[in-house]
Amino acid sequence: MSNRQSIYEIKDLSLNNEDLILNETVFHNANGYIGVRSNFEEGYPEGFDSIRGSYINGFYDIAQMKQAEKLYGFVEEKQTMLNVVDSQSIYLFLDDEPFNMFEGTVMESSRWLNMSEGYTARRVVWRSPKGKEVEIIIKRMTSFYQLSLFTIEYSVKALNFEGNITFKSNHIGEVMNYCNPEDPRVAGESFRHLFPHSAKIIEDASFIVTHTSKSGLAVCTGVKNCLSKTGVMDVCIEEHKAICTIESNIVCNETITLTKYTVFSDSIREQDCEQKAMEEMDCALSLSLEEHYKKQREYLTDYWNQTSLEIEGDDELSLAVRYNLYQLIQSVGKDEHSNIAAKGLSGEGYEGHFFWDTEMYIQPFFTLTNPKIAKNLIEYRYSILEEARENARIMGHKKGALYPWRTINGKECSGYFPAGTAQYHINGDIAYSIVQYYLATKDMDFIAGKAGEIIFETARLWIDVGNYVNDEFHINGVTGPDEYTCMVNNNYYTNSSAKNHLNWAAKFYHLLDEFNLLKPVADKIDLSQSEIEEFKMAAEKMFLPYDEKLKINPQDDSFLQKKMWDIKNTPKEKFPLLLNYHPLHLYRYQVCKQADTVLAHFIFEDDEKIETIRNSFLYYEKVTTHDSSLSTCIYSIVASKLGMEEKAYDYFGDSAKLDLFNTHHNTKDGIHTANMGGNYMAVVYGFAGLRLKESGLFLSPSLPKKWSGYQFKVTFEQSQIKIEVTEDMCIVTLVSGDEKVIHVYGREYHLKDTISIERI
Amino acid sequence: MSNRQSIYEIKDLSLNNEDLILNETVFHNANGYIGVRSNFEEGYPEGFDSIRGSYINGFYDIAQMKQAEKLYGFVEEKQTMLNVVDSQSIYLFLDDEPFNMFEGTVMESSRWLNMSEGYTARRVVWRSPKGKEVEIIIKRMTSFYQLSLFTIEYSVKALNFEGNITFKSNHIGEVMNYCNPEDPRVAGESFRHLFPHSAKIIEDASFIVTHTSKSGLAVCTGVKNCLSKTGVMDVCIEEHKAICTIESNIVCNETITLTKYTVFSDSIREQDCEQKAMEEMDCALSLSLEEHYKKQREYLTDYWNQTSLEIEGDDELSLAVRYNLYQLIQSVGKDEHSNIAAKGLSGEGYEGHFFWDTEMYIQPFFTLTNPKIAKNLIEYRYSILEEARENARIMGHKKGALYPWRTINGKECSGYFPAGTAQYHINGDIAYSIVQYYLATKDMDFIAGKAGEIIFETARLWIDVGNYVNDEFHINGVTGPDEYTCMVNNNYYTNSSAKNHLNWAAKFYHLLDEFNLLKPVADKIDLSQSEIEEFKMAAEKMFLPYDEKLKINPQDDSFLQKKMWDIKNTPKEKFPLLLNYHPLHLYRYQVCKQADTVLAHFIFEDDEKIETIRNSFLYYEKVTTHDSSLSTCIYSIVASKLGMEEKAYDYFGDSAKLDLFNTHHNTKDGIHTANMGGNYMAVVYGFAGLRLKESGLFLSPSLPKKWSGYQFKVTFEQSQIKIEVTEDMCIVTLVSGDEKVIHVYGREYHLKDTISIERI
Repeated sequence: MSNRQSIYEIKDLSLNNEDLILNETVFHNANGYIGVRSNFEEGYPEGFDSIRGSYINGFYDIAQMKQAEKLYGFVEEKQTMLNVVDSQSIYLFLDDEPFNMFEGTVMESSRWLNMSEGYTARRVVWRSPKGKEVEIIIKRMTSFYQLSLFTIEYSVKALNFEGNITFKSNHIGEVMNYCNPEDPRVAGESFRHLFPHSAKIIEDASFIVTHTSKSGLAVCTGVKNCLSKTGVMDVCIEEHKAICTIESNIVCNETITLTKYTVFSDSIREQDCEQKAMEEMDCALSLSLEEHYKKQREYLTDYWNQTSLEIEGDDELSLAVRYNLYQLIQSVGKDEHSNIAAKGLSGEGYEGHFFWDTEMYIQPFFTLTNPKIAKNLIEYRYSILEEARENARIMGHKKGALYPWRTINGKECSGYFPAGTAQYHINGDIAYSIVQYYLATKDMDFIAGKAGEIIFETARLWIDVGNYVNDEFHINGVTGPDEYTCMVNNNYYTNSSAKNHLNWAAKFYHLLDEFNLLKPVADKIDLSQSEIEEFKMAAEKMFLPYDEKLKINPQDDSFLQKKMWDIKNTPKEKFPLLLNYHPLHLYRYQVCKQADTVLAHFIFEDDEKIETIRNSFLYYEKVTTHDSSLSTCIYSIVASKLGMEEKAYDYFGDSAKLDLFNTHHNTKDGIHTANMGGNYMAVVYGFAGLRLKESGLFLSPSLPKKWSGYQFKVTFEQSQIKIEVTEDMCIVTLVSGDEKVIHVYGREYHLKDTISIERI
Repeated sequence: MSNRQSIYEIKDLSLNNEDLILNETVFHNANGYIGVRSNFEEGYPEGFDSIRGSYINGFYDIAQMKQAEKLYGFVEEKQTMLNVVDSQSIYLFLDDEPFNMFEGTVMESSRWLNMSEGYTARRVVWRSPKGKEVEIIIKRMTSFYQLSLFTIEYSVKALNFEGNITFKSNHIGEVMNYCNPEDPRVAGESFRHLFPHSAKIIEDASFIVTHTSKSGLAVCTGVKNCLSKTGVMDVCIEEHKAICTIESNIVCNETITLTKYTVFSDSIREQDCEQKAMEEMDCALSLSLEEHYKKQREYLTDYWNQTSLEIEGDDELSLAVRYNLYQLIQSVGKDEHSNIAAKGLSGEGYEGHFFWDTEMYIQPFFTLTNPKIAKNLIEYRYSILEEARENARIMGHKKGALYPWRTINGKECSGYFPAGTAQYHINGDIAYSIVQYYLATKDMDFIAGKAGEIIFETARLWIDVGNYVNDEFHINGVTGPDEYTCMVNNNYYTNSSAKNHLNWAAKFYHLLDEFNLLKPVADKIDLSQSEIEEFKMAAEKMFLPYDEKLKINPQDDSFLQKKMWDIKNTPKEKFPLLLNYHPLHLYRYQVCKQADTVLAHFIFEDDEKIETIRNSFLYYEKVTTHDSSLSTCIYSIVASKLGMEEKAYDYFGDSAKLDLFNTHHNTKDGIHTANMGGNYMAVVYGFAGLRLKESGLFLSPSLPKKWSGYQFKVTFEQSQIKIEVTEDMCIVTLVSGDEKVIHVYGREYHLKDTISIERI
């Protein structure tokens, strides 16, 4: 990887509040377990808006979610991801002058993210009001090697003076979440969720234990400050806050560095989280910071090597794509207690909830590059299967499991069910992701255990929810991915997804039987051959809407009977529509928030004729606002499939730059992880035309005009394969593992070492 | 009216909490302006549940109604009817012994409602723990003559002792509403809505002014206690409470009576409500209690005379019907500031909100018996037309007005829009009620003014909400009356109602033009001939779903494609279904809470062939749970029409006894006013087959087998007409007014004095 592509830097830092709060997200540090927003250590002036937060993946409290009108089964409690601590605060004093970019003179300033090394940094050359000049460099890291660890390396160089230097470094246990009651996407209330439990100082390290108000969870954070030269250190505890003051002196051209270690531990994962935090602190201090940086670099070298996605010929886009992939590894949970939140660990938007985003937009990337993480994500779903069964009962189903639309601990957190719980396709999405994982790994043992149990239990739900009409299997009263059209009959996406799900449930049943692995799972959930026959029958008879006149698949039974929304003449400020129109009004129009039928045409492309896919694409393009960040990447993939190269590229570009260029104007609330994963898909599934099918691995690479080439690696059945696409050629190389049969442009190839194929 | 039919009495009073709280409703006093629940003056023992309340029609505070997920246009504030005062409290002491039915010995006890005289009473013969025996008779009245007045006449007769007698009579200004957060129908929160403003004593009368927390309203109540013999009276104010203590002595067989006058005044209707309360108190005291009783009797004599509904041959049912009509006159607002709440003024269920219940179930009774009140009800709708316009904008409509589903002051109070605001048929309902009023009165001036403005503005909405598909006018995304099937396309009831509405808007336009009355209203709302042409076209092209196979009108586009709910095998305790199943689950079934298409077939009977109506009736009968109290009366009417006499009678009986026999187990929260009106309709529209059409007044009387006869009066075009139905005959008499042409069993008659027609 070239260095150029691995660093994102901004110079002459804007001190505008909007930019500051945006950069808190853009430069946040995370490792899948913890995430820390990039707040200035010294804070902003009074009145500035800031989301100052540190989060643990899967750590939550219960919040009330009162329903305006309470009806049976309505969700009235939700989980909410907590801001658990503030250990970012460091105040620097030069003699009596506090460092603060809003006073004195900022002579030089920059911030950067180094994606090869895995840290963020801020550099400021500053002159104090009284004329003292310093160079300050602050490096921050959340360690991939030691997941509990967050470090701040705070270096100060005196440029034109000597004198006293003081650091005041805080460790604050009583923190609150951010809220903006005006925006449904961050509408969590600023309610007191954390209560002080204990605060101790051991060997100058502070350990603060805090309890949640309702979920019965505890978190412990430990903080230790170390100065590069001798100084006078005082650590004291005031209420639920530890304050460490270190005084020293500095001479001209001398550099003094404060290293602040924070470790996190929580009661979901640990019996005694305080004890664990102390162990983690010992572990952190057992290596030098340089050694920690080295481990970080090694981890990321591996990571980038597994992915190896490189684009030649468009630097900005190339950087954006790399940024997106970096965020994915920052965000994804590394154990079964967590998953990947809609905003990763970068902010409080969507309250840290896990959605279908994981399975449909993010997991594909890990399935192809890091199957172990993909498996983790499925194991998380298994860990909440019991809650999914309960959810199905609440929704009136006698059998099966229905995954919640949004959740942390498995219980539904969707307050408006028509655009939430009614999205039954989540069952099909999870099944699809398991099938993809299976196709990539052929991990039959997993299917025989947890994965199979999920597949079968969730398949049962389709039988309970659907019914036969004129010998066709209908699914009524569900919401597809497009949230501008809720509670419809025979949503094409949902029915396709259910069909695929039921077919695969039957296939897995027979496969397990063949491998003599069936009995344990079948006995456990009392699954019989006759139920499998029901699955097959429903899949075979599944009704997939088709309009003879337009020769497209209508999004649902009544979609085409509605008025067309006039997207072109809708004023810009009225987007996203959901913030400007009553949902009932939107429901009456042909208008889509995002790819719905088009998504089905991507993932189940063999179900329809190419002409139907093309006609549908052209039809839905006209009625889709792409108000969801999950939309353009899918349009890009299908445009690629249809040979619409320019469209494919434009949609891809819109998608790729979303967070780095804040094109949806809400990155301050956190990154859009699904969009980032979708962006990867747009390259690999879109431009490169990769598909995982029962008949193997398929490629059909095209090259966007603006690029001179691109390459990436995938792991397929334990072999690593590299795909390079140039202007003329497609070169496929077996990097490691067994020989494979692959398909390029529809032709079969036996991959031993390298195959070079002329591009079509 | 026979006395037997005018008194509802219960003896040997149950002191069971459930019965007590139920009888608070059953024996409440109201007059359309104020309502007072029948709580025991002395209260119940600690721990007993009681809804102790006094209400003013249309008087409300604003309460927060937080949405679990806030989306554009979601309602977050509601109006809630307030319990405004407790002036019921009277404590009686015989020497030092307090009267209390839960101690000592109740030797005799009864309660009754006298519907001719207009009062309720309680009589108790009681022996105190120390052996003093008294007969206590307490009469309560809310005056129809002086609407602000509520009286309690509290008589005590010493049966076996002499001694001191003390009354402690309270007037409490700080009161709260009742709530039961578990039941959506009374889920208003017990929140402090009223704040003390002032409390004064003038000539031993206390006047307490209280302000609401958010709506900016004020209420003043005045209380005066008068003893029938000299005693020592002390009136003092403690906080926001006036306490009047009167001591006297009593001898054996002597009767002493305390008369307590309460007057109500509010700032919605009066500039200075305290001043007004004082005037009302003067007015109340200017007549003796006997004179007040006389005025009450006169009012009710008139009322019963206008109605004259009498049933021979079924005493229980006859009483129930009379009870229902009594409650209607108790409940209906007598000015444009109020309407008739779902629970009248008898309790806090549905928070005092006004629904379509008024227009479709209650107003028909007044239209036929008291057109002035019917006009008042329409004027109330006019008073909130501006809010209805605003509501239409919120819902995305550029033109027209959409009435709120539930409201007091005109702003929507529906927290769950799919079963609330989405019921656009309310516009058609209001239009229908105006048409009926017009047909009964031919009051063209009213159509030229307020009523026309409503009709035209609400008709505009249909054009904005609907769209043409294959040359048919479709209305998508609305909810019909059946709340178990929400947000559907082409709900038959809604489309029929819209068709009728649009047709009548066009008719009124031409009629007004003919009478040279068009210009003012057309100019005011900028109504053009071309818009009227649009109305006519949409009405003509209105799509009314019809199923060729079943030969019925499907409830909506997709109703027949759903699974059938197995009503027979649903356990009893699972009804009403809305309290036991998630709405999304219900929406997937063919199951109706109430008459929907069947209601359309009653009110728009000429739109369909009788066979379609019959087939539909038989079909919907099987899938209707009648969980709504608005259902069986409609089934009764249509059964009558179809000649299904037994069914008609059974449905009627179920409906008639609802509140008096608490068949829905929730009368404690208040009476079901719509059911009561519907009950009247079942007799007059059902058994007697009355219809108001453009071509005149139609009758087609049948006689239920169990009855020997029935009669009623209606007012038609200012003439009063009496209809008597006996076993063999139908006798129609012109009681007063001009001669009329009427239709009986399809034949035209010229009504001069009396016509006797053989029953078919």
